[in-house]
Amino acid sequence: MTGSLAPLRSAEIIAVGSELLGSTRIDTNSLFLADALASLGIALRAKAVVGDRRGDLATMFRLALERADLVILTGGLGPTDDDLTRDVVSEVLGLPLAEDPAIVADIEARFAKRGMRMPAINRRQAMVPHGATVLENPNGSAPGLLMNVGDRVVVLLPGPPREMKPMFERVATFVLSRRARRERFYRATILVAGRSESHVDEAIQPIYAPLATAVPPIETTILATPGQIEVHLTALSDDPEIARRALASARDRIAAAIGDDAFSLDGRSMEDIVGGLLLGAGSTIAVAESCSGGLLLSRLTDVPGSSAYVRGGVVAYSNDVKTAFADVPADLIAAHGAVSEPVATAMAEGIRARMGATIGVGVTGIAGPGGATPTKPVGTVAIAVAGPAGTTVRTVRFNGSRAQIKHYASQSALDMVRRTVARNAAVRRD
Amino acid sequence: MTGSLAPLRSAEIIAVGSELLGSTRIDTNSLFLADALASLGIALRAKAVVGDRRGDLATMFRLALERADLVILTGGLGPTDDDLTRDVVSEVLGLPLAEDPAIVADIEARFAKRGMRMPAINRRQAMVPHGATVLENPNGSAPGLLMNVGDRVVVLLPGPPREMKPMFERVATFVLSRRARRERFYRATILVAGRSESHVDEAIQPIYAPLATAVPPIETTILATPGQIEVHLTALSDDPEIARRALASARDRIAAAIGDDAFSLDGRSMEDIVGGLLLGAGSTIAVAESCSGGLLLSRLTDVPGSSAYVRGGVVAYSNDVKTAFADVPADLIAAHGAVSEPVATAMAEGIRARMGATIGVGVTGIAGPGGATPTKPVGTVAIAVAGPAGTTVRTVRFNGSRAQIKHYASQSALDMVRRTVARNAAVRRD
Repeated sequence: MTGSLAPLRSAEIIAVGSELLGSTRIDTNSLFLADALASLGIALRAKAVVGDRRGDLATMFRLALERADLVILTGGLGPTDDDLTRDVVSEVLGLPLAEDPAIVADIEARFAKRGMRMPAINRRQAMVPHGATVLENPNGSAPGLLMNVGDRVVVLLPGPPREMKPMFERVATFVLSRRARRERFYRATILVAGRSESHVDEAIQPIYAPLATAVPPIETTILATPGQIEVHLTALSDDPEIARRALASARDRIAAAIGDDAFSLDGRSMEDIVGGLLLGAGSTIAVAESCSGGLLLSRLTDVPGSSAYVRGGVVAYSNDVKTAFADVPADLIAAHGAVSEPVATAMAEGIRARMGATIGVGVTGIAGPGGATPTKPVGTVAIAVAGPAGTTVRTVRFNGSRAQIKHYASQSALDMVRRTVARNAAVRRD
Repeated sequence: MTGSLAPLRSAEIIAVGSELLGSTRIDTNSLFLADALASLGIALRAKAVVGDRRGDLATMFRLALERADLVILTGGLGPTDDDLTRDVVSEVLGLPLAEDPAIVADIEARFAKRGMRMPAINRRQAMVPHGATVLENPNGSAPGLLMNVGDRVVVLLPGPPREMKPMFERVATFVLSRRARRERFYRATILVAGRSESHVDEAIQPIYAPLATAVPPIETTILATPGQIEVHLTALSDDPEIARRALASARDRIAAAIGDDAFSLDGRSMEDIVGGLLLGAGSTIAVAESCSGGLLLSRLTDVPGSSAYVRGGVVAYSNDVKTAFADVPADLIAAHGAVSEPVATAMAEGIRARMGATIGVGVTGIAGPGGATPTKPVGTVAIAVAGPAGTTVRTVRFNGSRAQIKHYASQSALDMVRRTVARNAAVRRD
């Protein structure tokens, strides 16, 4: 039956709810949906957020329906007066609403389970446009709805991510995949540290430019995100094998042109990559950090299984803690200042010895806004990495807010650890 | 001149750029703009993201122009072919583009400063629709543009937040504020820890319900965010004094109904509030954390000036580090397990003594996904806070991902510190 219908190529998303128009909440559902749609070969054409106004929602819905093969509306399916999505969609499509007794029974059962009677207003959630398919919601009271409008598809999903995501996954698997075109989007990502966006672009432009017109065509996007540059490659193809091979080849050529600065070829984060290297080398790590204030340790321990290689660490905000917990000589601090390469080195070597780790890291700097001196402005950070083959130390100057400086310091430290562990592994292989 | 024009009451935002339709990037500019617009009494009516497609942008821009008094477009002002915003706006408004020699000179000077010649394509950024006001961009090469269209206003801003924000702030101060209506939106926020959303709602519903129809009317929104519940109050009024007084009174009545669980009445974060309490009490803090992995210390040190009260801490992932750095007896760990109240207590008391701090905190738990035991599932966390008046300890069970459990553990620990310091202060006052 669906075989005769045209494949779904484009989608628009409309998020409904006045709360999404304030300054405190953002629609993240659309990120999940964009990804899920790409794997069905459906391109997201536009997305919009509208408040709880009948007219605005109707206009936006009509517009989306004119342009896209698939229109997804999220939110506005609750039981109260300002939940308008069902009403507006049924009105625009000319499909009258009728109460579905099975949904009423479901919602009544949900309430009964908590020993409560269903409030009368929840009956609204049982109203179904004529001919619509009801999508079960195991995580909430609002069922979803799916309608075929000619060869277009309209899907109504609840707003809360934990209700929306599993519901959409089922719709994707059981309904949309049958209407997908043979071409799908495939992706590869390269993450880069230690180079600016324009330097990355310069190095790889000769590689990616011709890819745009190759078969299959590969599109390249370069994004600067805090502490790293991301290179995203997207291929559209009807053959998964061909797409994956083309992407892998493009990714490897780009990575080779970037060299050591390309730290992740599979989308894994810096802390994940560092963890993998440490685990692979049978190494452990210990950290003494000052200005990064625990963020470096927190990122290291964000990785599942990190207890296998993170020995632990010290956040040494005051000088006597640096001395007592990481064996930094007090006269060294007096001679060079707490923010200095000798102190960073002593922190790295001290914590390495004290915790008996393969790798020791020392980070000391000025996160700001206070604490600057004429020779050491806010953002000055000394980072040392001590390992079996000796200690590397460098001083970097970061710009930005306190939070940004903390992040950049942790990223640079992780990157230095990465290079150290990779180098050690290479030496051992020789 | 502008005095005769109607005030600006509503706005729409259109973010332009195909990269904003993927799964890796989200438009956060609109959060900043929503807030800035509210303080001008301008309500955000809808927002949209469109890709680099001429037709889609034109349609969305026409639609916004029909409905809103102010239309803000962000992005698409770069020098390349897919930067369409200038072209589309000039076309829709029927305002021909002409090159502005002053902008060319500016961009040339920017490049010259870096010892480079301006690429020819950057001339595109100097094209200005007839009659438009050019908005200087000290942080980038793309100038902004402002146009009066009858009594409507159209503003084009660059996409990068660090270029967009200062530019919009100047537009708001020097142009939009003259067109603002006398009513502005005023806000108050109450942050709550240790209670569910529905329990907060239950406690304060009798207070906020009548406020919606009071003079001035106050709207209440309750949001559940990780580890806390946020109560947002919004008043629309033409008198700042009346609005602020009404909001303060509403906030105080709501806070009183919630009691100790209401931890912030001015929007400040938990770590900020805790820092203020420590500073006010002349107290210092030291932390020994295991499962939260440095996140608690990182949050404490996110607060500017925290070096005045954060002594430091230890991330003790392995048992021997707990013993060596926080004086936790090895036989205590053997007897009770690392995740236990006695060990959390020993960590808090040990680090407090070792670092000579007023308050010591111990956090030990299972962040997952591994590490669970039959009696201690993933998410089990023991937290102890040691102070001059003794030690409080509790065991909590959190649900969620590893990152969520780390966050909840740090939030609960901070909240326990808050209650301890507040209680100590109250005792001292008695």
